[in-house]
Amino acid sequence: MSSTRIRELIVTPIAFGDPPLLNSNGVHEPLALRVILQLVLEDGTVGLGESTGGIVRLERLHAAAKAVVGMDVFDSTAVTAAIDAVLLPTVPSSHERGWTTSAVEVACLDAQGKLLGRPVSDLLGGRVRDAVPFAAYLFYKWAEHPALDGRAAIGDDWGEALDPAGIVEQARLMQERYGFRSFKLKGGVFPPDEEIAAMRALAQAFPGQPLRLDPNVAWTVETSTYVARELEGVLEYLEDPTKTIEGMAEVAKDSPMPLATNMCVVAWEHLKPAVERHAVQVLLTDHHYWGGLRRTRELAAVCEAFELALSMHSNSHLGISLAAMTHVAAAIPNLDHSCDTHYPWNSADDVIVPGVLELRDGEVKVPTGPGLGVELDHAQLERLHRRYVDSGMRGRDDTGYMRRFQPEYELKLPRW
Amino acid sequence: MSSTRIRELIVTPIAFGDPPLLNSNGVHEPLALRVILQLVLEDGTVGLGESTGGIVRLERLHAAAKAVVGMDVFDSTAVTAAIDAVLLPTVPSSHERGWTTSAVEVACLDAQGKLLGRPVSDLLGGRVRDAVPFAAYLFYKWAEHPALDGRAAIGDDWGEALDPAGIVEQARLMQERYGFRSFKLKGGVFPPDEEIAAMRALAQAFPGQPLRLDPNVAWTVETSTYVARELEGVLEYLEDPTKTIEGMAEVAKDSPMPLATNMCVVAWEHLKPAVERHAVQVLLTDHHYWGGLRRTRELAAVCEAFELALSMHSNSHLGISLAAMTHVAAAIPNLDHSCDTHYPWNSADDVIVPGVLELRDGEVKVPTGPGLGVELDHAQLERLHRRYVDSGMRGRDDTGYMRRFQPEYELKLPRW
Repeated sequence: MSSTRIRELIVTPIAFGDPPLLNSNGVHEPLALRVILQLVLEDGTVGLGESTGGIVRLERLHAAAKAVVGMDVFDSTAVTAAIDAVLLPTVPSSHERGWTTSAVEVACLDAQGKLLGRPVSDLLGGRVRDAVPFAAYLFYKWAEHPALDGRAAIGDDWGEALDPAGIVEQARLMQERYGFRSFKLKGGVFPPDEEIAAMRALAQAFPGQPLRLDPNVAWTVETSTYVARELEGVLEYLEDPTKTIEGMAEVAKDSPMPLATNMCVVAWEHLKPAVERHAVQVLLTDHHYWGGLRRTRELAAVCEAFELALSMHSNSHLGISLAAMTHVAAAIPNLDHSCDTHYPWNSADDVIVPGVLELRDGEVKVPTGPGLGVELDHAQLERLHRRYVDSGMRGRDDTGYMRRFQPEYELKLPRW
Repeated sequence: MSSTRIRELIVTPIAFGDPPLLNSNGVHEPLALRVILQLVLEDGTVGLGESTGGIVRLERLHAAAKAVVGMDVFDSTAVTAAIDAVLLPTVPSSHERGWTTSAVEVACLDAQGKLLGRPVSDLLGGRVRDAVPFAAYLFYKWAEHPALDGRAAIGDDWGEALDPAGIVEQARLMQERYGFRSFKLKGGVFPPDEEIAAMRALAQAFPGQPLRLDPNVAWTVETSTYVARELEGVLEYLEDPTKTIEGMAEVAKDSPMPLATNMCVVAWEHLKPAVERHAVQVLLTDHHYWGGLRRTRELAAVCEAFELALSMHSNSHLGISLAAMTHVAAAIPNLDHSCDTHYPWNSADDVIVPGVLELRDGEVKVPTGPGLGVELDHAQLERLHRRYVDSGMRGRDDTGYMRRFQPEYELKLPRW
């Protein structure tokens, strides 16, 4: 079985075009960073992975690459444990270590599936649905990047959205292009009453379709409670209105709708205190930091046992991540809400060969080819890597980018 | 992929020899009942499963057999869901439905492994250990079965054990034959002080080796608390001293050692109340009713998240079950204690071809062949099935068997 051993983990940082999307930290820069993994086995089989970018996490992936050589790709639990052990002395946060181990686990499963001729979903217990529902991810947005001197980012023909009418227009376009049947707004950008108005406008424009609001901890407990009351009957859930398990628990006491999080429960050791304090009612999983796809299924079982609803978080990502998200979501029985995805904002710059992943009717059909079922576009990978090198970027800085155009802007959480 | 569809599930009830082992319900009968599953795919691949016997659960397996025909063996989550749906109207207990779904899931994984040429442990994330530690499972025991007119049960050369010296002697024999390095006594048979004396005798005979006592809910809360105090420093954990989550929580408040259970937490909906009440500190998993091998890994993740230690429960079983237990235990990082197994009491009558599973140095090496890595002995299966038919037994009745020889015996829980 030596042919199933890991010969090399190729770690390639990339940069891809990203529109000027606003959030509680500032605004997305013209380029988003990501890392593509190619896990090469001794027999030449390659497993793909995708993770968040930035120099700090990139260096950890390089450390992981050294740790896994010679291990058997089927021992994915041991592979992630080996990486975890290497990182432990310098990375005390298990959440942070999870970003590294997760990406390699996905690459292991992709390689396993390719070796076995089975889709990754089969390695997770098989599909319980053939297509995975996603929500339209709405953002307050500038029409164009000031840093690009008026040139739109690649694929950015979405226009401006800075008020309720703009958000509804963006939602209509999202629905028209991709058929989404649920909507999430990234809030925390404008004063709460403006965002309440945006959600009410969406409710009016899309009656009966599930809506969510995520201000990324921009609010105090008091403001969160105010918004929750104002949006009673409008939201299916309110996501991360305020920070910490304690803060969320305070808001949850009086909230008329469930609270969701991908910010205060982001590692295994957060589950017990969050459950004990009844801090959240919906957990937004993310295989990119919870330890990979098998761990995400396990997390779903925790949610089932402790009566937490399940949904899925997204960061700016490309197709390898979308494929992984789709496979694991297809295998989880208790997926209670449509998943988040940034894919429409970034898909024009994708690093995989087109044709397999398509957002249609608000869903992505689960790829049925071996492994993740997607193929790397090597020429595009080279272009995106070159762009990364040329950019000189070492990490994401939404606040710094905002301050280039609004020097008085300050990062302040909670802001309201 | 039609060749991976399920053509037939062959359900074969069997009976095998069992020694006169005593417990809080009475005494084991000369025959124990079990069911062997052969999941036959359209391409002829066969996946094996083993479950508990008795007419009630046998009938449910027959119902399951009808439900799964035509399904893809890789869709094991959907397969178990289909069985669950068929049983739901007549079997309200999710724990009871779990006995049925679990057995079929194991057969699915065995078949998957055979199709893919990989051991089942690889389908669960790979081995984190190459051998799984088991504990010697000690029983108070008669020398022979009164019903057999002095003839010993097959493989029963263990002699009598009715007092501390007899238990120590049995433990020595267990250690000599199998190399066990930890010991569990099935208690609840004699007054608590006698069982306390037996545990102290074991502690003296095997200093430093982990010991456990399991009276199968034979005690009140008060008696449990008394025994726990008396055995401080002697036991690694005390298993199911008293019944219900509430009772265990009462005992746990003052117990100097962790409490373990396979009786008050036996289904997913029991986890939340047990954790909320701090009722148990060690969960004894059992893939035979928790939903199968993937679900057992998920259960292990629940234990990790909620700081429960993990060990493994056993019923009287043969080699297919031992193989399944070994594969899943090998894949679970947080296996905190050696596993229970009845195998030494019943292995002489095994239904698999000898040679793969061996208890040595207190461990079983994880089979490395495809699937579970064990092969069915068809002639032996036929013999054991014939014995089942000839026996006329419809279920297990430890109490009734005891009353044949001690007519005054009454089932009374708690007894002390």
